[in-house]
Amino acid sequence: MGGYTAPMPTIRMVGFDADDTLWHSETYFQAAHAEFERIVGRYVDLADAGVHERLLATERENIRLFGYGAKGMTLSMIETAIALSGERISAADLHRIVALGKSILQHPVELLPGVREAVAAVAATHRVVLITKGDLFHQERKVAASGLSDLFQRIEIVSEKDEASYARLLREFEVEAGGFAMVGNSLKSDIAPVLALGGWGIHVPYPLVWALERAEVDPAHPRFASVEHASAVPAVLARWEEGVAA
Amino acid sequence: MGGYTAPMPTIRMVGFDADDTLWHSETYFQAAHAEFERIVGRYVDLADAGVHERLLATERENIRLFGYGAKGMTLSMIETAIALSGERISAADLHRIVALGKSILQHPVELLPGVREAVAAVAATHRVVLITKGDLFHQERKVAASGLSDLFQRIEIVSEKDEASYARLLREFEVEAGGFAMVGNSLKSDIAPVLALGGWGIHVPYPLVWALERAEVDPAHPRFASVEHASAVPAVLARWEEGVAA
Repeated sequence: MGGYTAPMPTIRMVGFDADDTLWHSETYFQAAHAEFERIVGRYVDLADAGVHERLLATERENIRLFGYGAKGMTLSMIETAIALSGERISAADLHRIVALGKSILQHPVELLPGVREAVAAVAATHRVVLITKGDLFHQERKVAASGLSDLFQRIEIVSEKDEASYARLLREFEVEAGGFAMVGNSLKSDIAPVLALGGWGIHVPYPLVWALERAEVDPAHPRFASVEHASAVPAVLARWEEGVAA
Repeated sequence: MGGYTAPMPTIRMVGFDADDTLWHSETYFQAAHAEFERIVGRYVDLADAGVHERLLATERENIRLFGYGAKGMTLSMIETAIALSGERISAADLHRIVALGKSILQHPVELLPGVREAVAAVAATHRVVLITKGDLFHQERKVAASGLSDLFQRIEIVSEKDEASYARLLREFEVEAGGFAMVGNSLKSDIAPVLALGGWGIHVPYPLVWALERAEVDPAHPRFASVEHASAVPAVLARWEEGVAA
């Protein structure tokens, strides 16, 4: 009788990034970087040496071989320390750098505010999956320690979060890009490739961003939103779904 | 009319291990271990130091934190060399150890004899998947370099190949254990857990076995076969399927 029938929600699946979206991570990496500078500072003048830039250049180079994660970062720190010190760094100090890497692999998993409630609320109305990149073993440990695994239909740990990876995952999930929203702190890894495929992106910034994760996204993009905390994610999805249905 | 109708083949899916089943791998690891001993031999008496055992003990301890793969092995080699040398090892020699790890991550992917034909023959009649453990990024690189990716329906890189991992994969594949056969060189990772779940195992031994991969399987197990080369795999499957159908 001309009555309005609500269509199925357009967004069928919601992906959540893990590090710095569900729990703290970059904080630990940056603390390790600071301690790395203190160790290298015994051999070089930190004001002149550009330690941070050298480490970043080594990491950028090595990622093609190591991929992401704490073990590769540790090996890059070792290489950088040896090079910057002109091979003068002691075995004891290099062992301290190995210990820095091990401490990252053991850091406690502390959920960001409102995360559990937000994922649970989204999971009540959508299929939810966790999509993270980095070291397989370390990511699995953190997912297990987070206590969140039961909320996710699938846990996907990938080597790179680019358009090709998301396209493959969406094929496996049997979801069209237009029916998929990704929630994460990285514009480069969580938002830009999903928007490019035709999906939706909800940016939840984290105060610290690794230099290799920086990117820009047009804030006026019609399928993009930025929120302060994960707790705002269900409302954004609802608003989009009403908008699309209207 | 009492006519015999062949049932569907009982084995619906066949999994292939990758390292030392599809291509050479342990050869490179053992060459790196030998070079590691030569480097450490500059600081300790190799006859007394038990270098190999010390490295293995460090690896066994660190696997709980690092998981499998060349990056973790490299960090374990660095720790072992520092400990065995009483922190006397030079930065230059530690850099040589990092380079050993990098060389493993770049080794060429050389297929074992008959592998491509065997996988293609099995793929003509079964769903085939690749199931490997270790470093996500390195394994993906090797799969891509092997030229075999198109033969596999799915590439699964897992952190551990135990009963729990196989049970989870079989749920995802929607295959009963009795309809799944695994082909691989490791009795511990490829055969024993699959037999324990009720699946089938085809062992294709590789001449070298890493000490942490050793295990025993009853050679008379009714769902177990051992063959010299991958080329014998299709015939084993056919024999089993006839046997089961009879």
